[in-house]
Amino acid sequence: MKEYSQEAGDRIQNTEYRSMAEPFRFTVTHVDGRARRGELRTPHGVVQTPAFMPVGTRGAVKAVTHRDVEDLGAEIILGNTYHLHLRPGDALIARAGGLHAFIGWQKPILTDSGGYQVFSLAQMRKVREEGVTFQSHLDGASHLLTPEAATDIQARLGSDIAMVLDECIATPASSDLARAAMERSLRWARRARARQLQLRQDAASAGDVTVTNPGQAQFGIVQGGTCPDLRSESTQGTVDIGFEGYAIGGLSVGESVDVMYEVVGQTAPRLPEGQPRYLMGTGLPDDLVECVARGVDLFDCVLPTRNARNGQLITRNGILVIKNARYADDQAPPDPECVCYTCRHFSRAYLRHLFMAGEMTAATLNTIHNLYFYLDTMRRIREAIMFGTFERLRQEFHQTFSRRTQH
Amino acid sequence: MKEYSQEAGDRIQNTEYRSMAEPFRFTVTHVDGRARRGELRTPHGVVQTPAFMPVGTRGAVKAVTHRDVEDLGAEIILGNTYHLHLRPGDALIARAGGLHAFIGWQKPILTDSGGYQVFSLAQMRKVREEGVTFQSHLDGASHLLTPEAATDIQARLGSDIAMVLDECIATPASSDLARAAMERSLRWARRARARQLQLRQDAASAGDVTVTNPGQAQFGIVQGGTCPDLRSESTQGTVDIGFEGYAIGGLSVGESVDVMYEVVGQTAPRLPEGQPRYLMGTGLPDDLVECVARGVDLFDCVLPTRNARNGQLITRNGILVIKNARYADDQAPPDPECVCYTCRHFSRAYLRHLFMAGEMTAATLNTIHNLYFYLDTMRRIREAIMFGTFERLRQEFHQTFSRRTQH
Repeated sequence: MKEYSQEAGDRIQNTEYRSMAEPFRFTVTHVDGRARRGELRTPHGVVQTPAFMPVGTRGAVKAVTHRDVEDLGAEIILGNTYHLHLRPGDALIARAGGLHAFIGWQKPILTDSGGYQVFSLAQMRKVREEGVTFQSHLDGASHLLTPEAATDIQARLGSDIAMVLDECIATPASSDLARAAMERSLRWARRARARQLQLRQDAASAGDVTVTNPGQAQFGIVQGGTCPDLRSESTQGTVDIGFEGYAIGGLSVGESVDVMYEVVGQTAPRLPEGQPRYLMGTGLPDDLVECVARGVDLFDCVLPTRNARNGQLITRNGILVIKNARYADDQAPPDPECVCYTCRHFSRAYLRHLFMAGEMTAATLNTIHNLYFYLDTMRRIREAIMFGTFERLRQEFHQTFSRRTQH
Repeated sequence: MKEYSQEAGDRIQNTEYRSMAEPFRFTVTHVDGRARRGELRTPHGVVQTPAFMPVGTRGAVKAVTHRDVEDLGAEIILGNTYHLHLRPGDALIARAGGLHAFIGWQKPILTDSGGYQVFSLAQMRKVREEGVTFQSHLDGASHLLTPEAATDIQARLGSDIAMVLDECIATPASSDLARAAMERSLRWARRARARQLQLRQDAASAGDVTVTNPGQAQFGIVQGGTCPDLRSESTQGTVDIGFEGYAIGGLSVGESVDVMYEVVGQTAPRLPEGQPRYLMGTGLPDDLVECVARGVDLFDCVLPTRNARNGQLITRNGILVIKNARYADDQAPPDPECVCYTCRHFSRAYLRHLFMAGEMTAATLNTIHNLYFYLDTMRRIREAIMFGTFERLRQEFHQTFSRRTQH
């Protein structure tokens, strides 16, 4: 384990200052067990890892402003390619100068490939080797998403990290189906990478694709369901193609947390040590702690924002369901130890009132709290890794946090 | 016209510092024509007038946080007694220490009497001399609102300014109906005042009424529709009862703006010079300018917040309807000269996208802009009155502002 030093601190500041001119780069600065503390440099600035990425589906983190998101300490957000491609369209966003310019968020952005939403939201989808055809959930219009198209769309969006298109399957799946999807995902990943390299080397050859962020990185995705052999093959195949970073996909889709932890624990150590590892779409705060312990650097999840809108406040003790009658006269803040804007100013009684009355401000205040809790947990994790105390933090976290909702 | 001096500036600062200990007091510091620049001191701080009060119907200004509202420069907000009485209930709010403590807003609050909502929202309402019976729009439960009850509810809420219960009538109304309602409103005002004075002098005599803000002021309301004689009688009768301030009610209910300006122009000068004048529920920005010109000190209106949620941005040129297709690729901010958070960071194209996608953030960003425009207009009005240039501001305002929406 490397020691944290003043010199390291100075270096971090210099990096931030020069970040706009720097290419994509990832540095592991400290390790503690399998947990890693790192810095991810992107064309739009530095992300301290392990990091949580709030989900800004359609160019906005739901119920809060960018100002709120930045104040809460988020250094990177996620945008959904499927949603942005359908509305307002990546061509329009490219004309605005890319997603950062269009939405007015100047820090790093990761975009997914659109695949997950095609498989979960769109209608009449049909997977062929070429790609996946689907009908928009908005207007029923037909679309074809290929590995190349997903790459082109993200090139127009100009995110700092683009993801390859993979084939998502319903779970539980037979091992034949899982293998076929994993193998197709590998073939698609090769095509997506080839397209990305073509855009980097000779954007003019790519027809109508406006590359709005020439420094964009591309991550591959390990698939393979819950089968160790498939995961292992997928890992090797994806690493062989070669990306700037690697994601673990196809989890948090209904399997038990133990299985999820096991897959992550087997997969992460097989990924290149010097490159970032991103666990897609996970999870509850204790999942973040457990997967950092297994070597993951990046997370995203709709849970803190979606649950906030449903009146669930995620605290260090667990999930508080604000609509419960016991909170009607409760003058305590959601989490008395939390220092977020919501907890410093508002009571459970007031938050319950806003939620019961259907006030949008309920969603905003709950989202501020939940995102603060997630981002603060990541800050504490990063500090613990730097000081070599991650294992203690991990144990303390589990002592207080319960996955059960508190009614 | 008094001169603005450094001494006056100092005095204002001292007042703010000591405001918690000060009783309710209003001082006209400058006059310019009939326009007045003043200071309203309340138990929760000073309000510079003329002032606009954002509407915080159910204890929250819709789509924004208190932090946003305060950053925008609001010094006072309005709460709706009808809504708060029905949910979460004034007894619950009193147990939390009053509305300020319950909602976590420490600056001044004005509450209406609940009458307007009873007459516009509730079902099966029946007006008798005692008061008005109605069924809650939430659950159909029967309620009786009397002048005394409206006073008691507001005593529990502990707003800094409480309003008397008045009888609102549908317009246009016959002069018989208008006279009957005006006369009943005067009788109700007498009863509300008697109850308020009883609560002030001997709260213990009032049974279960917890007075959460002993420094609460009470305003009477001038009614009388659009008939000069009725307005004149109502003004005299209300002033004879004696309140800390006076409102002009029963306007902005469908009459033309010319008629509205005429009634305000006749009524305001007949109200006591040393007391605040509040025009209820008005209006568009040019209405504020015109009614300041006629001697009004306080305004409230749902228009900037409601129109924001409907995608209407109110700018110095008029109303911009963001959903229009012409804004799809428009990279300019809503109002290029505006310095609000929304206009400094976001384009019409992005705001249109958020609105079309149904993102809550659209409501938030539009509300921030509209409230900023209203509150900034009031700041410019106050400054102009101080410098004796209000008439010029008024002319310039009308040269650019159009009431028509810009499609």
